Amino acid sequence: MAETNRAADAAGIAPRDEARRADDPIVTDAATDVDIAVRLAAASGFERSLRADRARWLTALAEALEAHRQELVALAAEETQLSAARLTGEVTRTVSQLRFFAGVAVEGSYVEATLDSPDDSLTPPRPDLRRMLRPLGVVAVFAASNFPFAFSVLGTDTASALAAGCPVVVKAHPGHPRLSRRVAELGRAALAAVGAPASALALVDGFDAGAELVRHPLVSAVGFTGSTRGGRALFDLAAARPAPIPFYGELGSINPVVVTAAAAAADASGIASGLAGSFTRDGGQYCTKPGLVFVPEVAGFEAALVGALAEAPSQALLTDGIASAFDAGSAALVARDDVELVFAGERAPDAAVVAAPVVVATSIEAFTAAREVFLEECFGPLTVLVRYADEGALAVALAAIEGSLTGTIQHAPGEDVAELTAALGRVAGRVVFNGWPTGVAIAWAQHHGGSWPATTASVHSSVGATAIRRWLTPIAYQDAPAGVLPPELADGNPLGIPRREDGLLVTGPTG
Amino acid sequence: MAETNRAADAAGIAPRDEARRADDPIVTDAATDVDIAVRLAAASGFERSLRADRARWLTALAEALEAHRQELVALAAEETQLSAARLTGEVTRTVSQLRFFAGVAVEGSYVEATLDSPDDSLTPPRPDLRRMLRPLGVVAVFAASNFPFAFSVLGTDTASALAAGCPVVVKAHPGHPRLSRRVAELGRAALAAVGAPASALALVDGFDAGAELVRHPLVSAVGFTGSTRGGRALFDLAAARPAPIPFYGELGSINPVVVTAAAAAADASGIASGLAGSFTRDGGQYCTKPGLVFVPEVAGFEAALVGALAEAPSQALLTDGIASAFDAGSAALVARDDVELVFAGERAPDAAVVAAPVVVATSIEAFTAAREVFLEECFGPLTVLVRYADEGALAVALAAIEGSLTGTIQHAPGEDVAELTAALGRVAGRVVFNGWPTGVAIAWAQHHGGSWPATTASVHSSVGATAIRRWLTPIAYQDAPAGVLPPELADGNPLGIPRREDGLLVTGPTG
Repeated sequence: MAETNRAADAAGIAPRDEARRADDPIVTDAATDVDIAVRLAAASGFERSLRADRARWLTALAEALEAHRQELVALAAEETQLSAARLTGEVTRTVSQLRFFAGVAVEGSYVEATLDSPDDSLTPPRPDLRRMLRPLGVVAVFAASNFPFAFSVLGTDTASALAAGCPVVVKAHPGHPRLSRRVAELGRAALAAVGAPASALALVDGFDAGAELVRHPLVSAVGFTGSTRGGRALFDLAAARPAPIPFYGELGSINPVVVTAAAAAADASGIASGLAGSFTRDGGQYCTKPGLVFVPEVAGFEAALVGALAEAPSQALLTDGIASAFDAGSAALVARDDVELVFAGERAPDAAVVAAPVVVATSIEAFTAAREVFLEECFGPLTVLVRYADEGALAVALAAIEGSLTGTIQHAPGEDVAELTAALGRVAGRVVFNGWPTGVAIAWAQHHGGSWPATTASVHSSVGATAIRRWLTPIAYQDAPAGVLPPELADGNPLGIPRREDGLLVTGPTG
Repeated sequence: MAETNRAADAAGIAPRDEARRADDPIVTDAATDVDIAVRLAAASGFERSLRADRARWLTALAEALEAHRQELVALAAEETQLSAARLTGEVTRTVSQLRFFAGVAVEGSYVEATLDSPDDSLTPPRPDLRRMLRPLGVVAVFAASNFPFAFSVLGTDTASALAAGCPVVVKAHPGHPRLSRRVAELGRAALAAVGAPASALALVDGFDAGAELVRHPLVSAVGFTGSTRGGRALFDLAAARPAPIPFYGELGSINPVVVTAAAAAADASGIASGLAGSFTRDGGQYCTKPGLVFVPEVAGFEAALVGALAEAPSQALLTDGIASAFDAGSAALVARDDVELVFAGERAPDAAVVAAPVVVATSIEAFTAAREVFLEECFGPLTVLVRYADEGALAVALAAIEGSLTGTIQHAPGEDVAELTAALGRVAGRVVFNGWPTGVAIAWAQHHGGSWPATTASVHSSVGATAIRRWLTPIAYQDAPAGVLPPELADGNPLGIPRREDGLLVTGPTG
């Protein structure tokens, strides 16, 4: 408590307010309470923590989730209608993400330690220069509806920001408020128990609180996962600030798939079965759901897809808003003259928010003529087949697609897919071969991003090791006395981290 | 010409337009001509070039500048009034930058090649994932007035973008139009002579052309060096696009300096002499000019500064606009009740655009009370001294400063400057110790950036090896057949570039 009061003092906040905050990690949407959360986070001293400590703290957060897995899964299932199996897997994923970023923090490459020695013979002369990345400051994280753990309070944005040394204020998603509060409580308790500043993790709630967060002068960057409309509005707020801040938003994604003629000829039923599983998985509520599938006009594939969907279950959608948007979006497509209904699953009649799978089809000419209609994401278990007769028309259509998180190619063994790869790689952050885009592995080489509207900042990634870079900014020290240098930049590389010294990579101590 | 026609064809441009473009690298500010330049750049195929080829092409550009050094320096001197010595040094700097980025391209770390092997035991399972950075697309570069070579047509933004594999369309600065055109001509000829697509380097001119460039759907990113007002307007345009693009702007910077009491006591005249040289250098027309100097209330320092300035020359400023803004800015400061005029150099009376050095002083209390006045950059040979009596008041004042490219500490040997370093490091991209911020070395460890308003994107740098990252975006390949993988991601690391494989850094072939 003494520690907490010192932090409150530093932030210029009355002890009464802080006592309230300590008891209750959720604040209301009143601007003053958002302000308190941000100022306490900024005053937490978290940016000055050591990488090794932060790795320990992230591990404590992972252990807290694991220890309360059953309770949290039950709470999430009540609020989101997602299955216990899916939610259990998602907790595992979230734990893995926290441990992964603990590893990234410890490994230390991410600070990009770079040292150059003086050289007076150059124009201009080169002094002693030492550069690394430092934390940006308080990060605002907007939680997603569809990943109540992995892209929510302790999700990948929070994990990567904490690993970077940035305190985090999360804007709770209204789709799972009790879960958000409970995870925040557990997270703060876990941080406090291992000696970390708990105020480096806060939660705010309410629509206005989100806008206040993005506008707050002490917020340095924003991570967002959600709709294109909501993301665009917040992006515009971030850009309109007197001092604009980076806004890393993951918005809408159509995730095109191309099935080559050779692939369809070789294994129509296998591909149909894979597609059916991917676009209906958990009610099609994935940002990586394949929503647009270019299929050859070959007898058999569509029949196989209908067959594969015969047993596809209905799924209660996450929120009433998502369910009604899905109904409206699918009805609008079905009503079009240039669209044919291929499959419509039966929906359990007693639950308003339940959706059944829908497949529609159109011609490649219709797609090209009205691509803005077909490129709009319809969140839920719907996919659009675009029938193509020849590769020329396909190439024209692919040249018109917009940014997407993924692009997928179903091809026959040995088939030359270089041109398709280039066409999809132009706009998609990840190109998948003979697989499906749903299920985003946690790995150093992962990338989750893509051109607008997939993301607002296609230079960066929200999954994978380099997601941490969004929350860092460079600092260079010129002719610094040894006493002020961070140990990452000290002579002899005492921490043994990977560095670049006079242009050469070194991976251990050089002392 | 056949090659050129094919490119024109691909871009959907009539051969007549292309013929005009080939003859004349400058187009007017008509939107159609900007459109032609951008579409030809986009169709140039430059993104598909090999790193080794681009390194060769950058070297050819460097050699073209060297071969025409005398002609170009003479032209630049006429248009900018900068001295031949300064301009000669700047050509050398620009040549070094081009060669530096050729080296960065060849070395290959910058693509961040990262490979992870499959692991089905993970949640979610990990497929074969291979990630690297690829060029973003056409880059628009806004040239600066004050570096007619190093931050202009073939300057650091262009060099880093070309190294990344991005074609560049430069918006010429009106301060040196003939030089811009000549450098563009030489650059295009040099590219063509070594087999590179010349349309990957184009020049447009005119105020409207700049706005058209930022709005063009095929422009993927913008590099800008200039005023806060102009940069903000273009930043807003980039953010307001239907599909926003990154805008990397370097705007205004005040470059605070702190002279500690111990340093002033030890060497007042040395520090005064260094300061006089730095803030008057080339008419104070550097983005890194020290414009705000916290000096201890110690007898001697100001007198030494006045003495050091006795011989400081007048300097013709770059443009009439800069000269009148300097006159207005310095007059407004001098007229304030809380400002004392310390020094005003004599100006040659016959030249309207000539400026003489000005030093004003204020108290730390006045600075804190009206910091928005004193934090505004006055481009030209003026610096503001802020007199402080104790370190407490200094710390309060430093907590209020805004983003800057640099922060400088003049300290005594062995003095503890950790707190000053932290205070300046909070907002400055480079912290300089017992030196001066002007003169930005070209080095792997260099960073040229800082919080707003120093830059629009403090996560990135415009100088140093990582400046290339601004023009790159990640792509991940999942379970890709070997035939479609770029050689940087091939099994066995045939190119021998630094890579990360299953989490571990490797620096040579592994085959």
